[in-house]
Amino acid sequence: MEQKLTRLKTLLAEIADLRRAVAVLAWDQETYMPPGGVEARAEQVATLSKIAHQKFTADEVGRLLEDLTPHAETLPPDSDDAALIRVITRDYRKARKLPASLVAELSRTTSRAIEAWKQARADDRFEHFRPHLEKVVALTIQKAEAYGYEEHIYDPLLDDYEPEMKSSQVEAIFDRVREATVPLVQAIVERGRPVDNSILHQAYDPQKQWDFGVAVIKDYGFDFRRGRQDKSAHPFTTSFGTGDVRLTTRIMEHYLPSALFGSLHEAGHGLYEQGFAESLNRTGLDEAASLAVHESQSRLWENIIGRSKPFWQHYYPRLQEVFPEQLGQTDLETFYRAINKVQPSIIRVEADEVTYNLHIFLRFEIERLLVTEAVRVADLPELWNDRMQAYLGVTPPSDAFGVLQDIHWSGGSIGYFPTYALGNILSVQFYNRMLADDPTIPNQIGQGKFEGVLSWLRTHIHRHGRKFTPAELVERVTGGPMDARPYIEYITRKYSEIYEL
Amino acid sequence: MEQKLTRLKTLLAEIADLRRAVAVLAWDQETYMPPGGVEARAEQVATLSKIAHQKFTADEVGRLLEDLTPHAETLPPDSDDAALIRVITRDYRKARKLPASLVAELSRTTSRAIEAWKQARADDRFEHFRPHLEKVVALTIQKAEAYGYEEHIYDPLLDDYEPEMKSSQVEAIFDRVREATVPLVQAIVERGRPVDNSILHQAYDPQKQWDFGVAVIKDYGFDFRRGRQDKSAHPFTTSFGTGDVRLTTRIMEHYLPSALFGSLHEAGHGLYEQGFAESLNRTGLDEAASLAVHESQSRLWENIIGRSKPFWQHYYPRLQEVFPEQLGQTDLETFYRAINKVQPSIIRVEADEVTYNLHIFLRFEIERLLVTEAVRVADLPELWNDRMQAYLGVTPPSDAFGVLQDIHWSGGSIGYFPTYALGNILSVQFYNRMLADDPTIPNQIGQGKFEGVLSWLRTHIHRHGRKFTPAELVERVTGGPMDARPYIEYITRKYSEIYEL
Repeated sequence: MEQKLTRLKTLLAEIADLRRAVAVLAWDQETYMPPGGVEARAEQVATLSKIAHQKFTADEVGRLLEDLTPHAETLPPDSDDAALIRVITRDYRKARKLPASLVAELSRTTSRAIEAWKQARADDRFEHFRPHLEKVVALTIQKAEAYGYEEHIYDPLLDDYEPEMKSSQVEAIFDRVREATVPLVQAIVERGRPVDNSILHQAYDPQKQWDFGVAVIKDYGFDFRRGRQDKSAHPFTTSFGTGDVRLTTRIMEHYLPSALFGSLHEAGHGLYEQGFAESLNRTGLDEAASLAVHESQSRLWENIIGRSKPFWQHYYPRLQEVFPEQLGQTDLETFYRAINKVQPSIIRVEADEVTYNLHIFLRFEIERLLVTEAVRVADLPELWNDRMQAYLGVTPPSDAFGVLQDIHWSGGSIGYFPTYALGNILSVQFYNRMLADDPTIPNQIGQGKFEGVLSWLRTHIHRHGRKFTPAELVERVTGGPMDARPYIEYITRKYSEIYEL
Repeated sequence: MEQKLTRLKTLLAEIADLRRAVAVLAWDQETYMPPGGVEARAEQVATLSKIAHQKFTADEVGRLLEDLTPHAETLPPDSDDAALIRVITRDYRKARKLPASLVAELSRTTSRAIEAWKQARADDRFEHFRPHLEKVVALTIQKAEAYGYEEHIYDPLLDDYEPEMKSSQVEAIFDRVREATVPLVQAIVERGRPVDNSILHQAYDPQKQWDFGVAVIKDYGFDFRRGRQDKSAHPFTTSFGTGDVRLTTRIMEHYLPSALFGSLHEAGHGLYEQGFAESLNRTGLDEAASLAVHESQSRLWENIIGRSKPFWQHYYPRLQEVFPEQLGQTDLETFYRAINKVQPSIIRVEADEVTYNLHIFLRFEIERLLVTEAVRVADLPELWNDRMQAYLGVTPPSDAFGVLQDIHWSGGSIGYFPTYALGNILSVQFYNRMLADDPTIPNQIGQGKFEGVLSWLRTHIHRHGRKFTPAELVERVTGGPMDARPYIEYITRKYSEIYEL
């Protein structure tokens, strides 16, 4: 049995190496690759991905997992080996359900669809993207059918990003958040004390922005010997192992929050990636439990900590020193309100903490209509604008700022969006548990000290990697299931205070 | 037959993708990777290299090549397909001779030996490197035996870098160059008009050095849409396809030639890598014909062009504009002599054009003594210093500056060094042919125009990739075999003039 386990781990290690290599190629593509590299890089990524998929879905992997499963059941369920066999068996069964021909067809279709989306967005012509999206949706439906499902065809798609979560659960949670958010936004808009954030739109030297962000994420505990930060058009985090985690950010000279909160957000992802237990290296379990759990980490460091009063009590005098001309005459309270301004807007990635989730609810609703074929792709622009008006009271000036704004669907990532809002919800549940364990955390944050926060996250969340499902992890950490109530209380309290409701 | 050829090309394309991916991982490791990434990266590179080797040595590849060889003989020998089958058959037969266990053992041993070499060099303790080098030499001898040979055990090792060249040929060529070089160096040292290069050792702003180098290699024709330049500890060039060629350089603030000639040298490699015919993409023929041919390109652009009088007639006024304080009072002749100063020294990579080859001859001699077991590894330091005195009249102050200076042996690259000197020799043969075809080339260089040079190299050398052996290529280009005479005439004429002999 020991021999079989060793053999399984050897195979998984090679697959992990291939996937990490793909991540290096993708990182390079977004940071340093010259334009002439596009075609060859696409071939390299396709070849490595195909080999990784072939190796993972090989019969030998299945036989080893089958032979090892009775053995796993004799081990403590929390042990690395028991988790490995349990989680990888689940991955394997799912991967085997997809015919290779469908995987290849999806890969080819989405490669072309991404290029078509870029062009269609640049030209503001949804019609040019429509036939590509139609193919992607048709293949996604085929994928969901191949996976199979009990309740809803959306479930197996969501499961790719949020293992074992059902869309009915998401719906129930989102309904509660929406019921609380819509009146909160209304109250803010109608009777909140107005917030002026024009100070954030002055000219801020890019290098100084970069340096300030790096200093803060060093304070957070992001280890630059085991990672780095570069620039890219769209900020992201990727990892080639716990010893090499790459963040990216983008700097807007005339909008201070972009680089700063972008860096804090990605550092939250990066701290998670640096925190998996060494024993999980190259097993496939040295990854996030789910995308919602990943997002809970980024939102915790970006919003709950990074947009909090104690944080800025410590950092605002330092920021004023760096930008005396821009901020020297502005007091902490004004700055704090500026970085927390709530304003219904048309672009998801620029949305504030309160309205952000509404953008997600809209996408979740539309995705389910698409995969149940209750709406045609051709009708999306109208549906999009209609729902924007209903949820946020705004209408995009054109499709480039509406239905074409996100890359996800072109890449076949249908089922991904809900995890952003679920991450927000989890971030508060985790933070509340941390506060219960150590009520001095806000004081520590107020002194620019984050060892307490990080070591709590390491112990309770990071080190486990993918050993547990998100539901199991949330249960272990908070003693209960995912719950929208703490999040609703958090935004209601924070923004009622800021807007003096 | 068409089907079999298509199948072969599909397999070769995947192998090419894997090898290119390894190159991306290696480039990242030398440019941006944080220290914590070392271990995981080693695993990733090992896994990808192993898979590439397995795929290339698969029985199916052998059967396809065997079936296709009679077909290839019906094609024009210069055609891409005939060359593909001919060259890949040769690669395949060689690769199949190495047992997988030996490949793995060499990989493990050299990984450890490289780390041991780094440490031993830093500590200046040859004794700590000795046991590693002993293992590398023993395995290299096994490798040579596995390949087999007719004349000399060194031949199959050399063949890895310089296909179909024999060490007896190298020896004959090196003997002629040495016979000419040793008295030339002696004459320069004893009765040459002294050259003062202290102007090169002033402080030169690093960013301005970088910008000047980039401007020149753009003039050379290096296409930055299909490549880029970054910084690394040791300059190198690598390629992920003709559309994505990466150069690196290093800047020494107090030594102007380092970054400048480093950039020109690497750009020479890079222009070659950008110049393979598109039809060879992802076949394994989209690579250099050999390391000597590769080096001929770098040395041509670095030395024959970049250290020539016409080149500096155009660029020196521009360099003076960039560095008026440092060079404003120095005339062209003084600068030209300074960048061509000849001085026997202890470090190969810092050697001038004349003494450089002597460093190579010494290494070639020692390598052959090692693989014939005519000298023990333990005796290397003494042998090294002895030969340094004989060839160059200098003795390293310690082993770190002597036998430990180069990384090659720790990585198992025994047989590689001769290609540096062969590249020097070829660079002059190629340049002379170019001049015969177009005598206006020096005038063009004197105007900072390089289209003529580049298009000649593209046509006669670059586009062919690995379609021909080095000997075939040299014959096609020059009408004869590799020949030391033009090189000897070149250095004798150039340096007799500079030193007024």
